[in-house]
Amino acid sequence: MANIRIGLDAMGGDHTPFESVKGAFKTSVLAEFADVDIVLIGNKPEIDHTLSEQGISKTFEIIHAPDTIMMGEHPTKAISQKRNSSIMVGLKMLMEGHIDGFASAGNTGAMMVGSLYTVKTIEGIFRPAISTILPRLSGKHGLMLDVGANADVKPDMLVQFANIGSIYANLIMGIENPKVGLLSIGEEKEKGNILTQATYPLLEDDRFINFIGNVEGRDLFTDKANVIVCDGFTGNVVLKACESMFYSLMKRGIKDDYLNQFNFENYGGSPILGVNKPVMIGHGISKAKTFVNMLKLTREIVESNLIDSIKAQL
Amino acid sequence: MANIRIGLDAMGGDHTPFESVKGAFKTSVLAEFADVDIVLIGNKPEIDHTLSEQGISKTFEIIHAPDTIMMGEHPTKAISQKRNSSIMVGLKMLMEGHIDGFASAGNTGAMMVGSLYTVKTIEGIFRPAISTILPRLSGKHGLMLDVGANADVKPDMLVQFANIGSIYANLIMGIENPKVGLLSIGEEKEKGNILTQATYPLLEDDRFINFIGNVEGRDLFTDKANVIVCDGFTGNVVLKACESMFYSLMKRGIKDDYLNQFNFENYGGSPILGVNKPVMIGHGISKAKTFVNMLKLTREIVESNLIDSIKAQL
Repeated sequence: MANIRIGLDAMGGDHTPFESVKGAFKTSVLAEFADVDIVLIGNKPEIDHTLSEQGISKTFEIIHAPDTIMMGEHPTKAISQKRNSSIMVGLKMLMEGHIDGFASAGNTGAMMVGSLYTVKTIEGIFRPAISTILPRLSGKHGLMLDVGANADVKPDMLVQFANIGSIYANLIMGIENPKVGLLSIGEEKEKGNILTQATYPLLEDDRFINFIGNVEGRDLFTDKANVIVCDGFTGNVVLKACESMFYSLMKRGIKDDYLNQFNFENYGGSPILGVNKPVMIGHGISKAKTFVNMLKLTREIVESNLIDSIKAQL
Repeated sequence: MANIRIGLDAMGGDHTPFESVKGAFKTSVLAEFADVDIVLIGNKPEIDHTLSEQGISKTFEIIHAPDTIMMGEHPTKAISQKRNSSIMVGLKMLMEGHIDGFASAGNTGAMMVGSLYTVKTIEGIFRPAISTILPRLSGKHGLMLDVGANADVKPDMLVQFANIGSIYANLIMGIENPKVGLLSIGEEKEKGNILTQATYPLLEDDRFINFIGNVEGRDLFTDKANVIVCDGFTGNVVLKACESMFYSLMKRGIKDDYLNQFNFENYGGSPILGVNKPVMIGHGISKAKTFVNMLKLTREIVESNLIDSIKAQL
């Protein structure tokens, strides 16, 4: 069998290509990556320089992409103007089957919009979503989606998020029959906003998922639900608020294993769930370790046939 | 000048009347309460019993209210069926001018709906809001509203929240020309959901407030904005998520002064902003100390003429 090929945007992120190249090397020597080729995509002279600077003798396949989309750039403008950027070159390679998965810690919006233009949304999916891991006090992990791809959603989109999230929780996180909760502001069916009130009965009627009802903000870090669905506005605000609380407490010098789990750099990123190929969005301030986790997760998603499972359930 | 009279729901909350009565006594002996009468409203035999049980010899005015609205009860149903509940008796006394302010740690929904039926919304206000204190790493405090009274809001409601919140931040929190931020998922004007995109230009045009633009979830605990406005769905979810993170870290045995500020019991509660009289909602699991802070805050709101200032700005 041919090796799995994973493309890594060597330029995306705050400390690249130094940390991305370092992460790629660390990953490439892992036993589980024996049958995986990591393809570095970005400014070739810069990548070559970084490789020699770090004394890395291993040979990587490098695809030269002279442009880089910066973090603050307007996604749609950037992807149409920078067709030779590492993100667009990577996504095009993915679309054309030259790589099996693509990961970047660069501009999230450009990755999102670029994916829609290249590998495209799975037929039947209204809008792809981005998820986050929720660290639980029990030591387990939950999943929340959407956390930013869709600021305004409709009930049937939340139902799809519930389905996609359940498949992800099962295949990638190893959770049997994952419990799905609808994020709301009260446990009772009639509590919440117009969106959640309209979504609740649809989730109840969905035979593919294990819907347990509404969950509240206070349930994010308990094991009440394995998968929590919400609009991308609420999800993004709450994710960033918790992350900010984590950084504030870090600044206070607090050291704690559970608190450390709120360092979302540890998780390697989130796939764009609902597109036709494995696309992974990493944390902007990613260090080498994050790139390692990002590549590991991308490999798992490729190997699990997650996308085929999503297509099958639709 | 006649004493200020503050009504306290002795029954509302998880540990009442024990903690409420204890809190009322502790407050009554404070120097700043020399010109304040605390009126206890609730089941008189139970209150009398608690007073003697705690060996409190001080005489309180007690208004007998035989019913209690429980935490889980449906607000509208409860207030129509339990007219002799401590909440409804207190609100009626407030409406009729027998007390100057009313505080309860009981059923938030019943306090909200009950207020609308009794003391009523200030003319010109679309919907009252509930706020929360945001603990900042700097040691300062911010204000966020709405955090649960209005799950679905319209742009002009957010503009009113910005105005009411600014007046509150100025008069009660002592912040000059408070900076107002719109909670969103991106700093740029065009970022966010349909609601925030429509609200942004209205806030820009409002000459009574000091609008600084969008703020994100990560800005909740920085000093970027003094007053943060959002819909009550997002506000409630994020508040409960942060509170839950606090409780989780407490369970881990972490002791830290900043972390302790996320114990919202410390703040005594939130007034219902936008009704004609001072109505204070306390934290359900309030202990004596919380009741002390609740009564202090109620007194400040009465003395500051907050409500007249809100009326004047409309």
